[in-house]
Amino acid sequence: MGKKIFETEFKVRDYECDIQGIVNNANYMHYTEITRHEFLESIGISFLKCHLAGIDPVVARADLRYKTSLTCGDSFLSSLTVEQKGPKIIFHQTIRRKSDGAVCCIATVEVATLVNGKLSRGEYFEEKLWDWL
Amino acid sequence: MGKKIFETEFKVRDYECDIQGIVNNANYMHYTEITRHEFLESIGISFLKCHLAGIDPVVARADLRYKTSLTCGDSFLSSLTVEQKGPKIIFHQTIRRKSDGAVCCIATVEVATLVNGKLSRGEYFEEKLWDWL
Amino acid sequence: MGKKIFETEFKVRDYECDIQGIVNNANYMHYTEITRHEFLESIGISFLKCHLAGIDPVVARADLRYKTSLTCGDSFLSSLTVEQKGPKIIFHQTIRRKSDGAVCCIATVEVATLVNGKLSRGEYFEEKLWDWL
Amino acid sequence: MGKKIFETEFKVRDYECDIQGIVNNANYMHYTEITRHEFLESIGISFLKCHLAGIDPVVARADLRYKTSLTCGDSFLSSLTVEQKGPKIIFHQTIRRKSDGAVCCIATVEVATLVNGKLSRGEYFEEKLWDWL
Repeated sequence: MGKKIFETEFKVRDYECDIQGIVNNANYMHYTEITRHEFLESIGISFLKCHLAGIDPVVARADLRYKTSLTCGDSFLSSLTVEQKGPKIIFHQTIRRKSDGAVCCIATVEVATLVNGKLSRGEYFEEKLWDWL
Repeated sequence: MGKKIFETEFKVRDYECDIQGIVNNANYMHYTEITRHEFLESIGISFLKCHLAGIDPVVARADLRYKTSLTCGDSFLSSLTVEQKGPKIIFHQTIRRKSDGAVCCIATVEVATLVNGKLSRGEYFEEKLWDWL
Repeated sequence: MGKKIFETEFKVRDYECDIQGIVNNANYMHYTEITRHEFLESIGISFLKCHLAGIDPVVARADLRYKTSLTCGDSFLSSLTVEQKGPKIIFHQTIRRKSDGAVCCIATVEVATLVNGKLSRGEYFEEKLWDWL
Repeated sequence: MGKKIFETEFKVRDYECDIQGIVNNANYMHYTEITRHEFLESIGISFLKCHLAGIDPVVARADLRYKTSLTCGDSFLSSLTVEQKGPKIIFHQTIRRKSDGAVCCIATVEVATLVNGKLSRGEYFEEKLWDWL
């Protein structure tokens, strides 16, 4: 488990860069979020439909290590592998600059699932995740 | 070291809440950033002036654990303690909901300092940090 | 109508400044939004409670004229007057730099009210607005 | 002038939707900005390089009319035409939902050009704009 890789590509938006001329740290949180949502969509899970059905994946922990800064004009590859650990889904995510493959950010994101506001055993995503893995 | 506490108060802005009705995770990164910058300002360090002088503190690692979600209308207390560890400054940060003191987010943020784009030994902030501690 | 002024104060957050070293234009939209919501709250209207009750004020038009740029460290005064025009509420908003009163942004924002997703005649806010005016 | 159309496609990011379940108004400002920057890039003008050379296009006025709301999962087409009016460049921008062509936002954005912080006659972009038009 955790070997199969989902990867997608994005481009830095100029407004995401701050006064230091580099992408502001909080935006990497956004990048990892949209990558997870694109991944979920690719295996048939819609964040919006889940929410409307009372099923809300929420981030319990996010650990981001920043290596190389992205800046205006950069494209980047955002990849993830998935691991299920008890009731949590662990996403191992990497963001690499497209031009040279430099690692920009390595993130470990733990996601718990709320059902009608209460912590679940994670069974709602299990089947589709196993199909993918 | 690390015992003295800096604390400030903020209020959730409605646009910071996402479709789940809670503050989006990336905004806690913003909250911890503005708290650090308010702290630095309180001890006489301006983020902007530093940048213009070629001194840029950058986040090397941010580890955020999410406990209780903030939502529209919530006020919260954001506090930090500081620890110097070799060339890095480690900020231990906590965000608590004001109404009941519930812990919302616990973050450990490691900051390195670039001088003209190169990693420094952290000496630029040392003196003022020691004065405060 | 439209003479009474609501005013509140904010401070620029460093992450709101972009690579040009000034507050990114989109953030003025945020500033005007939080000012309207603070105003509504001051007269007893909660954006969240309205939403949960199926009443959603939505911006139909926003016209922003940018005069002086705000930057890191700036505090600013954000004021508004209100005018009701048929089913719409018109907010006349001004953002001024606190240090010297320089006008930064003048905005006219037209708000319509949806009730269960359908355009209403604006009667839900009328009474409280009239009480204030 | 103003007849030639530049168009690009984006997809709503879930974090751009707020508690009302629709894209927050400020994000349309971001959408129009990235469209202008993509356009400038397509005719050989880099926002970052301009900034580093002391040339900063800044928005003097933005007038946005909101028609249909975008939500999670929506893709949209963002188009613009250009008009030069004295020292200003006027962008006429339209955002349409991809699935059915519904007009979501119509924006008129006036851009002035600062050279070393002073308002210019707009000559820096003129030639490339004329080549494109």
